[in-house]
Amino acid sequence: MINAYAALEAGGKLVPWQYKPGTLGRDEVEIEVDYCGICHSDVSMLNNEWGMSAYPLVAGHEVVGRISAVGEAVSHFKTGQVVGLGWHSDYCKVCASCGSGDHNLCSKAQGTIVSRHGGFADKVRANAASVVALPKGMDAKTAGPLFCGGITVFNPLVQFDIKPTDKVAVIGIGGLGHIALQFLRAWGCNVTAFTSSDSKTQEAKALGAHQCINSRNSAEIEQAAGRFDLIISTVNVTLDWNLYLSTLKPKGRLHFVGATLEPLNIGVFGLIMAQRSVSGSPVGSPATITKMLEFAVQHNIKPVVEMFKFEQINEALDHLKSGNARYRIVLQR
Amino acid sequence: MINAYAALEAGGKLVPWQYKPGTLGRDEVEIEVDYCGICHSDVSMLNNEWGMSAYPLVAGHEVVGRISAVGEAVSHFKTGQVVGLGWHSDYCKVCASCGSGDHNLCSKAQGTIVSRHGGFADKVRANAASVVALPKGMDAKTAGPLFCGGITVFNPLVQFDIKPTDKVAVIGIGGLGHIALQFLRAWGCNVTAFTSSDSKTQEAKALGAHQCINSRNSAEIEQAAGRFDLIISTVNVTLDWNLYLSTLKPKGRLHFVGATLEPLNIGVFGLIMAQRSVSGSPVGSPATITKMLEFAVQHNIKPVVEMFKFEQINEALDHLKSGNARYRIVLQR
Repeated sequence: MINAYAALEAGGKLVPWQYKPGTLGRDEVEIEVDYCGICHSDVSMLNNEWGMSAYPLVAGHEVVGRISAVGEAVSHFKTGQVVGLGWHSDYCKVCASCGSGDHNLCSKAQGTIVSRHGGFADKVRANAASVVALPKGMDAKTAGPLFCGGITVFNPLVQFDIKPTDKVAVIGIGGLGHIALQFLRAWGCNVTAFTSSDSKTQEAKALGAHQCINSRNSAEIEQAAGRFDLIISTVNVTLDWNLYLSTLKPKGRLHFVGATLEPLNIGVFGLIMAQRSVSGSPVGSPATITKMLEFAVQHNIKPVVEMFKFEQINEALDHLKSGNARYRIVLQR
Repeated sequence: MINAYAALEAGGKLVPWQYKPGTLGRDEVEIEVDYCGICHSDVSMLNNEWGMSAYPLVAGHEVVGRISAVGEAVSHFKTGQVVGLGWHSDYCKVCASCGSGDHNLCSKAQGTIVSRHGGFADKVRANAASVVALPKGMDAKTAGPLFCGGITVFNPLVQFDIKPTDKVAVIGIGGLGHIALQFLRAWGCNVTAFTSSDSKTQEAKALGAHQCINSRNSAEIEQAAGRFDLIISTVNVTLDWNLYLSTLKPKGRLHFVGATLEPLNIGVFGLIMAQRSVSGSPVGSPATITKMLEFAVQHNIKPVVEMFKFEQINEALDHLKSGNARYRIVLQR
C-alpha cells in the first residue's frame, strides 16, 4: 500500500489517500520518497488546467529518495541507492527521439503525474530508464527541484551549444530562473536577469547575474538592443516579445521554457533581418539530467528551497500560489 | 553617365533616366549590366512599401554583367570578368557579424537599391566585397536570380546544417521556391512542395519535389504531422502557422525567408513540447553566395526564367505583379 496525498477533484484540497500499486513491473523501480519539490505544473495538473488530469490525482514530480525495490529486469540500480525522478517516468525507447537520446521529446513519454501517481507520497514507481542516480557529493535535500525546474533551464545550454563567451539573459527569477542564473554563471557566460521585482535584484546578483534589467521597463530593455545570444523565458505571462527579440544579437534565440497560454505575436521582419530564432523545449533526457547533476555538484549549484513537511502540503501549495516562495518549495518527511 | 530606368515617385512607371555616378571609389567596381532579375522586393521598393525608398529610384538587385572599371584598391577583379551583384552592395567589414563571415547580418550593410542606384541600368557600382565572380560553366543569362532569390533559400541549408537525410518542405513555389526545390533535391533531401496551385504540381516535381501538398488543404497538411526537419516559407501571405508547425518533427524548424506583414501567431506549447524553432534569415554572405554558385554549376541548377528586354521593363513588372511569371523574370539588353 502506498500512502499518498491526493486531490479527489479539480482544485480540491489534498487529502491522505492510499492506493495499491500492484506488482512491480520488470523494468520498474520503486522509490521511497525522502523529498519532493513542488512545481507550478503540479498546481496546473491538480487544477486540471491542461484537461489531462485524472482523479484521485497524486502530484509531485521532483522526487528524491532511495530505491526500495527493483524489477527483475533492472540491473543498474540497487536497493538503498539515492536517486531522483522528474517529469517523465517512462519513454517508448524505440522511436527516433529515444534512439537519438532525446527521450524527453518522445511522443509516448509518460508523465510521472499524468495517468500515474507521483511523488506526494511515501513511495513512487517509475520505469528505471527515467530514474537517475544522484552523484556523490550531491545534497539530497535540495536536489529534487533539479529534476524538473533545473533540467528545464539546463537543457537549452546543451541543446543549443551555448558557449562561455555567450551573453545570456533569463526572464523571470523564480523557481526555474534562480537555478538558470546559477548554471549560466558557472557555464562562464555573461548573465543578465530580467525581473519585474526590484526586491529580487540583489538576490539575482548573488545567484549569478552580472546585471539586472526591469522586465517591465521598456526604456531599460531598449538599451539592451542587440546584446544577447540567448534569452530563456521562464514566465507564464505575456510580455512584449518583439521588444525582447530586439535585444538579441544577430543569430540570437528567444527560448521559452515557461508556457504562456496566449499565443506569441512575433513580427517576421525582426526574425528575418537578424536571423533570429524563437523556440521552446521541455525538461531534458536522462543523459542530460546526469550531466546536469554532475555539473551542479562540481560548481556547488543548489536550488534555494523552503522546506515543508509532507503533512503541511496544503499550506505549502498555498505558499507557492502566493508567489512568495523563495525560490522553490520542497516537501520532506 | 549611367543610363537607367527609374521610378520618379512611389508606384510610378519606370522611365529612362540618367545619372552621373561620380568618381569610382577606391574599393568599388563598376559592372556593365548584361542581365538583371526582377524580385518582389524591387516592386516593394518601387512602391515605397517599406518606407525607405528615395526617388528617383533605380531598382534591380539580381545583376549579372562584366566588370567595366575597378577602383584603385581593388585587386581581386579585373575588367571584363563576369560577376554578379545581389541585395547588398557594401558591408561595414568590421562589426562582429562581418568579422564572423555573416556580412548579410551586418547592421550597416548597404542595400543595392536603398539610397543607391541598382541594376535596371546599363551600369551599376558596388563595393568590390559584395560582388561575386561567376564560376566557370555558369550560364550568365539565368544566374541573376541566384544572387537574391537563390541565396535566400540556399543560405538556410548552410546556416542550419541541413543534412541529406533531412526531410524538407518549401511553402510557395514561385521565384524563390522553384530554386529551393532544385537545391534541396541536389542536397540529397526528401523534398516536399506546399503549393496552393494545382497547376504547379507537375512542375514542382520536375524541379525536385518528391511530393506535393496543397497548402490550403488543412486535412492534407494534417496528414503530414511530425514529418519535416525544416520548412522554408517563401510566401508573403498568412497561413495557419500552428498547423504547419505540427508538421515538423521534434527539433524541427519553420524558417521564414518571405515576410508576411501580419505578425506570426504562434502557440508556445507547440514549440515547447517538441523543441521546435521558428526563425528567419535575409539573403546570404558573399562566401555563401560563392558556395551556392559552385553547387549550382555542379548540379546544373538554374532558375527558370522568362526573358524581357530592358526596354520592356514596365511590361515585365506588370507580368510579375500578375502572378503568372514562371518563375523569375530576367531583363536583358
